[in-house]
Amino acid sequence: MDKVMALLFDVFGTVVDWRSGVAREAASFLARHGAGQVDPTAFADAWRCAYQPSMEEVRSGRRAFVRLDVLHRENLERVLQEFGIHPASVPAPELDDLNLAWHRLDPWPDSVAGLTRLKSRYVIAPLSNGNVRLMMDVAKRSGLPWDAILGAEVVRAYKPTPEAYLRTAELLMVEPEQLCLVAAHNSDLTAARKCGFRTAFVPRPFEHGPGQTTDLHPEKDWDHVAGDLELLAAKLCG
Amino acid sequence: MDKVMALLFDVFGTVVDWRSGVAREAASFLARHGAGQVDPTAFADAWRCAYQPSMEEVRSGRRAFVRLDVLHRENLERVLQEFGIHPASVPAPELDDLNLAWHRLDPWPDSVAGLTRLKSRYVIAPLSNGNVRLMMDVAKRSGLPWDAILGAEVVRAYKPTPEAYLRTAELLMVEPEQLCLVAAHNSDLTAARKCGFRTAFVPRPFEHGPGQTTDLHPEKDWDHVAGDLELLAAKLCG
Repeated sequence: MDKVMALLFDVFGTVVDWRSGVAREAASFLARHGAGQVDPTAFADAWRCAYQPSMEEVRSGRRAFVRLDVLHRENLERVLQEFGIHPASVPAPELDDLNLAWHRLDPWPDSVAGLTRLKSRYVIAPLSNGNVRLMMDVAKRSGLPWDAILGAEVVRAYKPTPEAYLRTAELLMVEPEQLCLVAAHNSDLTAARKCGFRTAFVPRPFEHGPGQTTDLHPEKDWDHVAGDLELLAAKLCG
Repeated sequence: MDKVMALLFDVFGTVVDWRSGVAREAASFLARHGAGQVDPTAFADAWRCAYQPSMEEVRSGRRAFVRLDVLHRENLERVLQEFGIHPASVPAPELDDLNLAWHRLDPWPDSVAGLTRLKSRYVIAPLSNGNVRLMMDVAKRSGLPWDAILGAEVVRAYKPTPEAYLRTAELLMVEPEQLCLVAAHNSDLTAARKCGFRTAFVPRPFEHGPGQTTDLHPEKDWDHVAGDLELLAAKLCG
């Protein structure tokens, strides 16, 4: 890791707990709209489930780049219908506000302390598919001490396309091997390694709730594996 | 200022003292290359003097966007010749290193404390013509506590073209009047105001040395005028 100058972080799942955060805000929304019987975590899962297909439209070139907030907002309308709520029956500002649930996600308990320690040795920045304002709102609300906000919107490419990683290295004026992606998702690390990045796996066994079956373990020989971000900091800054 | 969510900062001259910093590094370079008689602040001024014309090539559309480090490096070779040093006689890594003098500029004495206090109430970010890595290096070295690194390279437009301001507002998903530019240069504030930004003038009467004649006073009725960034923080966060 001698050559590494910056740690870049996946955020949804790796740094913040999107499922609980979205479910919390969905719960009150659903109750207000006569769907109090719906499990809000099922609603969060359904919303998140639309995430990859909607980005794939952009990654494939079928659609020009739009920020994640736009995709989340479109997906929200579709998911509401799946749960029996007609989006046209809800005032638009209320939908807009629910869409901002993604801007109000809480970090995992170790995230702020871990990032703060890692920042003493490395440049730290998100390399997330979330847009700049979303990342900034999450950071500002919780005190995530990023040195910069990078990611899909800055380079106009969604992970895991190579451009998302390579253009970020170009922006930082370093070789890919001077960057290390930190992520809870083996697939993200696989794509980053193909681009020459160093890799650090931090499992988040409850990202998808208590029954999670994916990404419980490192699936490759990642450069680093640590139980959480504080433990990663202990390894890299110890 | 109720509606303002972010303060965006000009950096060269407003937050950091580019002239002393560049002169400091130029002094040892010049001495090593048989030009010890050259006034290093004159060298810094000449280098800075090439700044606007080189950006104008990009602003005018005659040249595709390139980051400021590239312009600085080209300008350096021209300025060296003006001072009687043939750039071809200097090893390229030494020129590259001198070019990084701009990455090692010191903040004015009030900058870190002022920004830290302003950060408690606003999103704070550079809106500089300096590139992302340059801004990041300056910040990391001196502890400038930015929430994000914005500026010309992110929006691919150099100030004072309207796109530099307007695309930044678009990226932050706010109306221009929700942003306030903080600058020591009346011209920068004029351009920002034309785009709808709020404006704050902080004079830096020694940016150009003891004989400075420009930007000593606010030339328009800027929304805020404060003697330095700590005083601006006292006004806006008091």
